[in-house]
Amino acid sequence: MNSRRLITGFSNPTVKHLRSLREKKHRKAAGQFLAEGLRLLTDARESGRLPEILVMASNRDLHPLLSTLESDVLAAGGEVLEMAPDLLAKITGKDNPQAVAGVYAEFDTALSAIDRSAAKIWLVAQALRDPGNLGTMLRTGDAVGAGGLILIDDCADPFSVEAVRASMGAVFTQSIAQARWEDFLPWLRGGAGQLVAASLRDAVPYRGAPYASPCFILVGNESRGLPEEYEMACDLRVTMPMKGRADSLNAAVAGAVLAYEVLAALE
Amino acid sequence: MNSRRLITGFSNPTVKHLRSLREKKHRKAAGQFLAEGLRLLTDARESGRLPEILVMASNRDLHPLLSTLESDVLAAGGEVLEMAPDLLAKITGKDNPQAVAGVYAEFDTALSAIDRSAAKIWLVAQALRDPGNLGTMLRTGDAVGAGGLILIDDCADPFSVEAVRASMGAVFTQSIAQARWEDFLPWLRGGAGQLVAASLRDAVPYRGAPYASPCFILVGNESRGLPEEYEMACDLRVTMPMKGRADSLNAAVAGAVLAYEVLAALE
Repeated sequence: MNSRRLITGFSNPTVKHLRSLREKKHRKAAGQFLAEGLRLLTDARESGRLPEILVMASNRDLHPLLSTLESDVLAAGGEVLEMAPDLLAKITGKDNPQAVAGVYAEFDTALSAIDRSAAKIWLVAQALRDPGNLGTMLRTGDAVGAGGLILIDDCADPFSVEAVRASMGAVFTQSIAQARWEDFLPWLRGGAGQLVAASLRDAVPYRGAPYASPCFILVGNESRGLPEEYEMACDLRVTMPMKGRADSLNAAVAGAVLAYEVLAALE
Repeated sequence: MNSRRLITGFSNPTVKHLRSLREKKHRKAAGQFLAEGLRLLTDARESGRLPEILVMASNRDLHPLLSTLESDVLAAGGEVLEMAPDLLAKITGKDNPQAVAGVYAEFDTALSAIDRSAAKIWLVAQALRDPGNLGTMLRTGDAVGAGGLILIDDCADPFSVEAVRASMGAVFTQSIAQARWEDFLPWLRGGAGQLVAASLRDAVPYRGAPYASPCFILVGNESRGLPEEYEMACDLRVTMPMKGRADSLNAAVAGAVLAYEVLAALE
């Protein structure tokens, strides 16, 4: 059986479905999300994730990794679609679209799926609103060997096209959980774990602070930072030098500077 | 003389001019750029920068800082405009517009305007394409006490609305220069300065590396990184741990992790 289909025309129902995945409500309804680019899809495959639908532009270059991907998807019972580049561009919403995209089943993001003993570092973001920052935190987590990213309260959707893109594949390698603070804190206190936040209140210098594994690094909302009660619930509050006019860093940057410091301390 | 004017209607030529500043070619032609929000405009004022035109939404809250700003702009011969919030939203292109925006004269970005002895750290970005990353680097530069950001080759425009927004005011406090590599390198070598890049080639660990002041931290393009010859022209190549699948960090994140390390080393 050959499941490869050629799709033509913007009004094709499959194209409409794929395009709809750029919106959160349609992603949630379908339980699916989009990722694009051969590099990303190959990273996903090597992490054990195959797309349910593989979409290829008709003008794609021949590439052995793409052939492997195609045969793996077909062998797993998935679908392979081929379409004109401008049609694919409509789906991914990018001017210079990659020649390949995939539709993946969303993962389980329950806190109970997190195995805290699997890594020394975990990133935690509270009310992070920018999908680019969220994807960047996933990417940083991959780099420092973190176990994953725990999203507290109302964060951007980790399965949005922008977050997946900014994660550079880390959405497939990092565990992702979503929880309310009132559920996260009892879960955290139910096992080992040090909660650390960058803070200006009652804090110690971030270099040389007594970090302990597993270390949960908590970063707050882009404009409001962390609520005071959240900071006060932390085991350790650390402060980074601020030499200029501003009193804060970009959320993803603050998380990264702290994560690299914790990595050095725990090694 | 009262120079405050009430503007009504999208077709007003002033509104058209202000909106046009969201596009680079119009910014260059006018030599002006837009910044929004009372916090940002106040930071600018305290850094000695007043807008040529101050725009206020008619539904703004009364605020002493806004009154100060208004009287300073009028005293300096500037213009103050008042308009409906939806009109201001059209100008800044933001769904939830700030109640105030300013039109500023673009700064001199010649390399010759940089005083390298003014700071121990300088950030340098090559072909950085994302205005959010660029603004984030300015913000990080402010935080680490850098002198400014030097933009090499074809970078995003530091005066774009997105870059100004992401800089959180640092566009007004950091020096900004734009240069080609073939002009930057002779300029750098014409004085003191260590050029450092994050690299995988012939590099030493970034922690404990022999950083020297003034230290110029070079970050490359988001997808291609630095050209090999640029890396090879550096005095020091350092590498950061990469524990996961990926071999790189987000450009602004890499610059920040490195900048905080250099700050600690040079203090």
